[in-house]
Amino acid sequence: MVDEQGREKGEKGDTRVPPGLVRFELLHEDASGTKARRGRLHTPHGPIETPIFMPVGTVGSVKGVGPDDLKTLDAQIILGNTYHLMLRPGEPLVGEMGGLHRFISWDRPMLTDSGGFQVFSLSEKRKITEEGAAFQSHLDGSRHSLSPERSIEIQETLGADVIMAFDECPPSTEDRAYLEKSLARTTRWLHRCVKAWSRERSSLFGIVQGGLHEDLRKRHAEEICAVDLPGYALGGYSVGEAPEAMHAGVAYSAPLLPRDKPRYLMGVGTPLDLVTCVEQGVDMFDCVLPTRCARNGLLFTSEGKLVIRNAAYARDPRPVDPACSCYTCRTFSRSYLRHLFAAGEILAMRLNTLHNLHYFLDLMAQVRRAIAEDRFAAFARDFRAKAVAQEAERKGGR
Amino acid sequence: MVDEQGREKGEKGDTRVPPGLVRFELLHEDASGTKARRGRLHTPHGPIETPIFMPVGTVGSVKGVGPDDLKTLDAQIILGNTYHLMLRPGEPLVGEMGGLHRFISWDRPMLTDSGGFQVFSLSEKRKITEEGAAFQSHLDGSRHSLSPERSIEIQETLGADVIMAFDECPPSTEDRAYLEKSLARTTRWLHRCVKAWSRERSSLFGIVQGGLHEDLRKRHAEEICAVDLPGYALGGYSVGEAPEAMHAGVAYSAPLLPRDKPRYLMGVGTPLDLVTCVEQGVDMFDCVLPTRCARNGLLFTSEGKLVIRNAAYARDPRPVDPACSCYTCRTFSRSYLRHLFAAGEILAMRLNTLHNLHYFLDLMAQVRRAIAEDRFAAFARDFRAKAVAQEAERKGGR
Repeated sequence: MVDEQGREKGEKGDTRVPPGLVRFELLHEDASGTKARRGRLHTPHGPIETPIFMPVGTVGSVKGVGPDDLKTLDAQIILGNTYHLMLRPGEPLVGEMGGLHRFISWDRPMLTDSGGFQVFSLSEKRKITEEGAAFQSHLDGSRHSLSPERSIEIQETLGADVIMAFDECPPSTEDRAYLEKSLARTTRWLHRCVKAWSRERSSLFGIVQGGLHEDLRKRHAEEICAVDLPGYALGGYSVGEAPEAMHAGVAYSAPLLPRDKPRYLMGVGTPLDLVTCVEQGVDMFDCVLPTRCARNGLLFTSEGKLVIRNAAYARDPRPVDPACSCYTCRTFSRSYLRHLFAAGEILAMRLNTLHNLHYFLDLMAQVRRAIAEDRFAAFARDFRAKAVAQEAERKGGR
Repeated sequence: MVDEQGREKGEKGDTRVPPGLVRFELLHEDASGTKARRGRLHTPHGPIETPIFMPVGTVGSVKGVGPDDLKTLDAQIILGNTYHLMLRPGEPLVGEMGGLHRFISWDRPMLTDSGGFQVFSLSEKRKITEEGAAFQSHLDGSRHSLSPERSIEIQETLGADVIMAFDECPPSTEDRAYLEKSLARTTRWLHRCVKAWSRERSSLFGIVQGGLHEDLRKRHAEEICAVDLPGYALGGYSVGEAPEAMHAGVAYSAPLLPRDKPRYLMGVGTPLDLVTCVEQGVDMFDCVLPTRCARNGLLFTSEGKLVIRNAAYARDPRPVDPACSCYTCRTFSRSYLRHLFAAGEILAMRLNTLHNLHYFLDLMAQVRRAIAEDRFAAFARDFRAKAVAQEAERKGGR
C-alpha cells in the first residue's frame, strides 16, 4: 500500500521542518491514472490521514455536536475561525484558558484560518491598506484591525497545529489590474507573516490566490512556494464560480504546489468537489456545507440529497440512508427526523449534523482506501456518474 | 434495605392489577420519621426505582438531548405530552410508526399526560363542556377537541406504559362553587376514562384535584381512589401558589392516596420541592424545570443556582459544579460554557441540559439511598438548610 519512493520523498522534505511543527509523509501516489495521493500529516496532536475533510468549528464548537461526538465520528482535525474567535470570546481569554484545544476540550489536531477571508467578506464594513485591514464587528459594530502580524499573533495565542497566512481573497468580479495588485500584496503579507511566526508549536501554511486566471495562479504559486513552509493552500475557489470552472482551476493549480507538502483547498466543498479535487492531488479540505445543510434539513446520502422536511417522509419508517452506519441512521426513521425538524426540536440539528458529518468523513475514508488500493480512477468515475444521475433525477422532479 | 411488611402489602395490592399493566412494589418505608417510601414500579418496559424524577419530552424529544444521552444519564422513564403530539405529528402517524416508544427510539418506560392541563392553559382558545374541551391549536389555530374517551384513545395509540385520566385543572383563582362543579365533573370524566380504557398495555392513573382546599382535596381523593387503578396522581399544585402553600397542601393530600400504589405529583418541581414532597410520601415527579432552565443558562449545582451568562464566569476554569460527575462538568469549564451560551451555540443547550438532568436524576438517586438507609429525615433537613442558606446568599447580592 505504501509507495516507497513517495514516502522517501516526503521524508526528505520533512527534514526541513523544525521539530514540534507538522511533518507531511507522502505514503502513496495513486497508480490508476489520477494525481490522488495518500498521506499522513504528523502534528503535535497526533497524525492525520490524508486526503482529509475538516469539519468547521467557527466559534469554538462544530455547530450541533460536541468533541465526544466528533471522536465517535472519527473526525481527525477540526477548524476554528480567527475572525469569530478574536471578537468572541477574544483570543486573550482563550490564551488564559490554556489555548483553543484546552478551551474547547479537543485534544486532536486543529487548524485556524487567518481571519482574512471573513474580514474581506464584510465588504461594506472594512478597509484594506498595505498595513492590513480595518473592520467593524458584525456583532456590535466595534472597530478592529487585522494585519499579517496581528493574525499570526492571534493564531499563535489560539495555538492550533496549523495556522494560515493572512491573505486577501479578492472577489472574482475584480479586474485583472486589481488582482495583480492584490496578489503582490498577499505575497508581501506572507513574508511579514513568516517574520512574525514563532515556529514554536503552530505550523504556517501559505495561500496561493489568483482567481481563475492560470497565469496569475502560476506566478503567485511560484512566489508563495518560494517560501519554505510546512504546507500550502489554494484560496479563492468556491467563491461563486461554476463547479466546472473551479474543478478546471484546481486541476491547473494543485500540481503547482510542492509534491512533498500537504495541499489544502480552502472552503471546498460538495462531495463531488472533494472526489474531483482529490483526483488533482489535493490533500485537505474544509467546508461548512455538511453542518450548515444539516441545520437546514438537507441530508447527504448514498442515493443523493434528501430534504427531510419533504412530506413524502412523514410516514417513512426507513433510515435516512439505509447504507449508512451513523448513529442517526442506526437509530431513527425518516418519519421521526422529519417530525423533529418540523417541530424545531434541537435534537433535529444534532442528529442531522451527526449524519452529514459521518457522510463526509466516511466518504474521505473510502477515498483513502481507493487510493491505497490503486483504484481511485474507477472510484472517482463511478462516484461522478452516480452524482450526475442523481442530480438529473432530482431535477426531473422526483 | 427491604421492608418485608411494605413489600407484602405492595404485592397484595398488585394482585388486583391485570398482567401487562404496571405493578407497584413498596420496598421500604423510611424509619427516620418521614413518610418517604422506597418503591419499584414494574412496567412493560422494565422497572422504575422510586422516588423518581421523570424528564419531560414534550413533542417526542427531551429538548436538547437524545435517547442515548438519557440512558447515559440513567433516566428511567420520560414523559410525552398528548396535547403536543396529537397536534404534531398526530397520534395516527405515531401509531403507524409502531407507537411512541418506537417512534422516538426509547425502549424504557414512558408516561403520557392526558392533554387536559395544556388545553385548559389555553384559556382564550378553549371551551369546556360536560362532553370535554374544544380548543384551537397554538400552532395554526385549527379546531380540535378532547374528551375522556378521546384522550384515552390517543394515549393508547401512543402506547405509553402509564397514561393519565382526563381532568380539569381549574385556576387557583376560581371560586369554591366553580371548584366543586369542576371536581364533580373530573370524577365523572374519570369513570368515562375507565370505561374507554382497554387495559391492554397502558396503565391508567387517576388524578386528584381540589386546589389548596383541604376538604375538597379529601372528598375528591375519596371519589378518585374509590376507582381501583394502578396509580394515583395529585394535580393542581405548582400552578402559581407559594412553595410553602404547595408543600403544606401535598403534606395533607399525599397520605390521602393509597399506600400500596404509586403516588405521582404532577408538574413538580424544584430540587427543594422534590425532597420536601418525597418526605410526604410522593413517589413520582415530572417537571420541565431542569431542561427549560438549562436552555436559559440557569444551572443547578450542589452550591446553588448558577447563571452561566454571568460575567464572573468569563475566565473561570472550574467546572460548573466541582462535585458533579456529569459529562459537562468532567469535560468543560464555566468559561467555555459561558462562551457557548453567549454565542448562541446549539452545544450550549445540550451541555447545560445534560448537566441539569444529571443534577435532578442524581438527587433522586441520593434520595433513594437515604430512604433505604433510614436516614432520610437528616438528608431532607440538611438539604433544606443548605437550600435556604444558598437562597439567602443569592438574595444578599452575591
